[in-house]
Amino acid sequence: MKIALAQINSVIGDFDGNASKILARVREIAGDGRADLIVFPELALCGYPPMDLLDQDAFVAGSLEALRRLQRELPPSPAVSLGYVDRNRSGAGRPLRNVAGLIRDNALVFTQAKTLLPTYDVFDEARYFEPASERRLFDLDGTRIGFAICEDIWWEAPPMPGLHYAIDPVKELLDAGAQVLVVPSASPFGAGKLAIRQKLAATASREGGIPTLYCNAVGANDSLVFDGRSFAVDAGGRIAASLGWKEGVLFVDTEELAAMGPSRRLADAEGQGVEAAPTARVGSAQSAAAAEHPMAEIEAALVIGIGDYMSKCGFKKACLGLSGGIDSALVAVLAAEAIGSENLTCISMPSRFSSEGSVSDSVALCDAIGARLVSLPIEAPFGAFLGTLETEFAGTAFGLAEENLQARIRGALLMSWSNKFDALLLTTGNKSELATGYCTLYGDMCGAIAPIGDLLKTEVYELSRFINERTAKEGRRRPIPEATLSKPPSAELRPDQTDQDSLPPYEILDAILRLYIVENLAHDEIVSRGHDPALVARIIKMVARAEYKRRQSAPVIKVSARAFGTGRRMPIARSIHEAGG
Amino acid sequence: MKIALAQINSVIGDFDGNASKILARVREIAGDGRADLIVFPELALCGYPPMDLLDQDAFVAGSLEALRRLQRELPPSPAVSLGYVDRNRSGAGRPLRNVAGLIRDNALVFTQAKTLLPTYDVFDEARYFEPASERRLFDLDGTRIGFAICEDIWWEAPPMPGLHYAIDPVKELLDAGAQVLVVPSASPFGAGKLAIRQKLAATASREGGIPTLYCNAVGANDSLVFDGRSFAVDAGGRIAASLGWKEGVLFVDTEELAAMGPSRRLADAEGQGVEAAPTARVGSAQSAAAAEHPMAEIEAALVIGIGDYMSKCGFKKACLGLSGGIDSALVAVLAAEAIGSENLTCISMPSRFSSEGSVSDSVALCDAIGARLVSLPIEAPFGAFLGTLETEFAGTAFGLAEENLQARIRGALLMSWSNKFDALLLTTGNKSELATGYCTLYGDMCGAIAPIGDLLKTEVYELSRFINERTAKEGRRRPIPEATLSKPPSAELRPDQTDQDSLPPYEILDAILRLYIVENLAHDEIVSRGHDPALVARIIKMVARAEYKRRQSAPVIKVSARAFGTGRRMPIARSIHEAGG
Repeated sequence: MKIALAQINSVIGDFDGNASKILARVREIAGDGRADLIVFPELALCGYPPMDLLDQDAFVAGSLEALRRLQRELPPSPAVSLGYVDRNRSGAGRPLRNVAGLIRDNALVFTQAKTLLPTYDVFDEARYFEPASERRLFDLDGTRIGFAICEDIWWEAPPMPGLHYAIDPVKELLDAGAQVLVVPSASPFGAGKLAIRQKLAATASREGGIPTLYCNAVGANDSLVFDGRSFAVDAGGRIAASLGWKEGVLFVDTEELAAMGPSRRLADAEGQGVEAAPTARVGSAQSAAAAEHPMAEIEAALVIGIGDYMSKCGFKKACLGLSGGIDSALVAVLAAEAIGSENLTCISMPSRFSSEGSVSDSVALCDAIGARLVSLPIEAPFGAFLGTLETEFAGTAFGLAEENLQARIRGALLMSWSNKFDALLLTTGNKSELATGYCTLYGDMCGAIAPIGDLLKTEVYELSRFINERTAKEGRRRPIPEATLSKPPSAELRPDQTDQDSLPPYEILDAILRLYIVENLAHDEIVSRGHDPALVARIIKMVARAEYKRRQSAPVIKVSARAFGTGRRMPIARSIHEAGG
Repeated sequence: MKIALAQINSVIGDFDGNASKILARVREIAGDGRADLIVFPELALCGYPPMDLLDQDAFVAGSLEALRRLQRELPPSPAVSLGYVDRNRSGAGRPLRNVAGLIRDNALVFTQAKTLLPTYDVFDEARYFEPASERRLFDLDGTRIGFAICEDIWWEAPPMPGLHYAIDPVKELLDAGAQVLVVPSASPFGAGKLAIRQKLAATASREGGIPTLYCNAVGANDSLVFDGRSFAVDAGGRIAASLGWKEGVLFVDTEELAAMGPSRRLADAEGQGVEAAPTARVGSAQSAAAAEHPMAEIEAALVIGIGDYMSKCGFKKACLGLSGGIDSALVAVLAAEAIGSENLTCISMPSRFSSEGSVSDSVALCDAIGARLVSLPIEAPFGAFLGTLETEFAGTAFGLAEENLQARIRGALLMSWSNKFDALLLTTGNKSELATGYCTLYGDMCGAIAPIGDLLKTEVYELSRFINERTAKEGRRRPIPEATLSKPPSAELRPDQTDQDSLPPYEILDAILRLYIVENLAHDEIVSRGHDPALVARIIKMVARAEYKRRQSAPVIKVSARAFGTGRRMPIARSIHEAGG
């Protein structure tokens, strides 16, 4: 059986647009007999995650109406499987189901609902969906196909400690005699996550001795980047072919995959859009995933995250505050990659505390990436504010209020420029700052999306160096000035300030933050990994006390296993028990 | 059997503090033999909602350690039931359980886990908890007690359309022969919700012919207000006694309740704290709830919401921007009630567009409530900003950027004052503004909590008038100036601006917003209720397009069935399908 995996970028709620895209893909493929079945991702018809739009009856009705229209308009063959939201018609449980439906000869001939509903991290599926009550196979022209939707293949390893799924959908499908396992997914990017997906699929293939076809969504929605990278696993558990980070179609022959040895490559893949051909890989799942540099993965995800958020929100132009520091430099480079440097304006806002280097480094960066640099000194508004506050603040020392005020003047300038020229403001803060509260609410936290809000400071350096080196290898000028990479980080809000006046060295801070935030460890456990007890307690308290700031932060593009935002839901008013002693 | 319902205000994560409070209550009651059993609310030991603190193993361990300590320290009798987080020891499913445990003679003699796990609106219980696999009774000195935890009594009417719980815990407990139904809860306030709780409890009592004892948490956590108002229902389904909005203990005799006729009152209740005696009510559930004016309920909830958030976050003083308009006037009045007017500073920030009335109305209000009024004119910073932006903005017309800039200058002034004097900034925006985006991000949206962010503009007027009249009846001066109530609302960001330049009349706007946001209706359904199709489409688009602002708004104190915040989770980048045509 010839199967095409069509990885597409759906817009949430755009039923007409998504259906048209599906129809166009099918028509392109249908003519030349290259597929008996075309597979689209999980919830391809309504986009993922639809969130509380699912509570609107009209949303579900609109999605089902689009399904019926597709059913009428699709060519009779090949068969098409696509993800959509269905009503739960059982009369018990949650109102909806997350379904893969198979359309053939203009009829919906088979549906399989999702069984394992991720309800952790950024996922809320148990909020809406009732799990499948049974898992069945569909016999398509003599080939028995099992559908496992995204999390359904994660039975053995859901990335939430202590969660043990009672049902293993893949085992049931294999036991029932599946000859092909199809996995429509909307799996968000995470660093290193492709290797896990591939390992889970490979395990299923090896256990069943059958091919597994993983079709992922691509594109970004708010905080989530869907990295595509759909792939086919042969019956021996080897990655036979895969797609890259753009929309595209992967063609496979399941009979060939079923018979396939360890090192042959039989798939015929065709990329759509920018990529002429997919990134096909051969070898074990582990080695295939390891082929991509961790920083290259993150760079790709962030570029998609910025670009797709902007286009889906209707923005062509972006702006950001360029301080001369590493964070804003990296965001500028990523933004220029995502939308073109001609659409990016960098705004330098020097103060009485800005170093000369800050200005010259900003000039060098914009020069290198070709973005426009605007200078808006904050001295005049700062002076005016201090004058207005003079009576009230009389007799108080220059302190936090005055430091934050400078950041807020910058925020107001950036937002004014953004409003005036319809340019989306990018937030330049990193995860270490967001974690510790070393950032100013309504100041440097202003912006519509935070591209590097899930990168610890040490990762910001790592990605910056990686991009500089990659660019140099490509024969172009390193975008980020060496001075920016080497000078001590500073908020420059008071004379001779550096980050390390308030924070421990970033290597130590980030190590502790990773243990506390990503691994959810408490004080004593972190100390047992070799950290200073008083420092650990101090950092935990900083993180907990900055919760109110993060509640009002811009959406952060998620790249780690635990990003700030909807994937980490914390009360603000609380006792900080986990700081220990 | 004599049972005491101890409604307490737990702090999330403060195991020691919560356990000490429980111990103190038990010791107070234990001495005089007034109770055989003392009931504490759902998750009383760790506070509700603990959210993702539950993902931290140390949180669960800390809670269990506090339970063991309590077990040792509690007097051998009376028996004590309290809510805590337990591990799910079954090896399958979610890692935790939401449990009511019964301690007697220093032993944990009985536990009942929660069966129905609310996972809608603000609730995420399926994210953490495995439902109870069985529901059992406990025989305490010959009385068979059934524990139904909060949502467990909501089988017939979970407030989420399309959700149908498969198990009815109350029916099971009644069928098993329960003689008393105990309902430990952490049920957040919603306007009119008490009547539903009482109706559900009354139905259970009537069906079983037994008393139902409802023990609710009290106090606020971020967006949620727990209104207490614990109550006892007699075997005939009548409310026999209840508590008010403060910590307190309700004493009941279940034998008397079991034998009780329709109009007798046998309970002996004792309030703690401010209230000397509880608000005891007699009569049907419906009439008991109807006894409290809807606006009195909302006022009480908001006052607790402000005061408890501030004290749990460690703030004594608050500030806010007073514009002369109705919203900030109402927030000032509520804040003065919550924390005392001596702890409130109102900041007036007039501009070239401010009317004279705005200033004089602010003076009159502060005079009436006794709060300090500070004036910080924005003209100097506004001029400085315009100067700084002059070159960039040359040739453009005064517009949105300049309007928003004024609001952002006010935000920066308020935050400076807040930072300098350690006063929590209260956000003064209402739900109609938040819905339509008729507010400035990082401007008037600044603040740590939004007390009236869940009140539509028409409700803001209604509550203001209610408070004025109540105050007048109490023989005191009406706090909100008549001019503030009667003048047309205006943001005063350009000459002669009124809200109705940009928005339809609030009566119409609010009616449509209620249908769209609270009832989740789509365009055509709202039109079928008699609204103009083009206007409905315009408003739906405004609401959807303002999602990015709300994502960065301060937590809103929830009083309606659907508030902005964690109870309404919407994607930002999406197609606005529900606007129709």
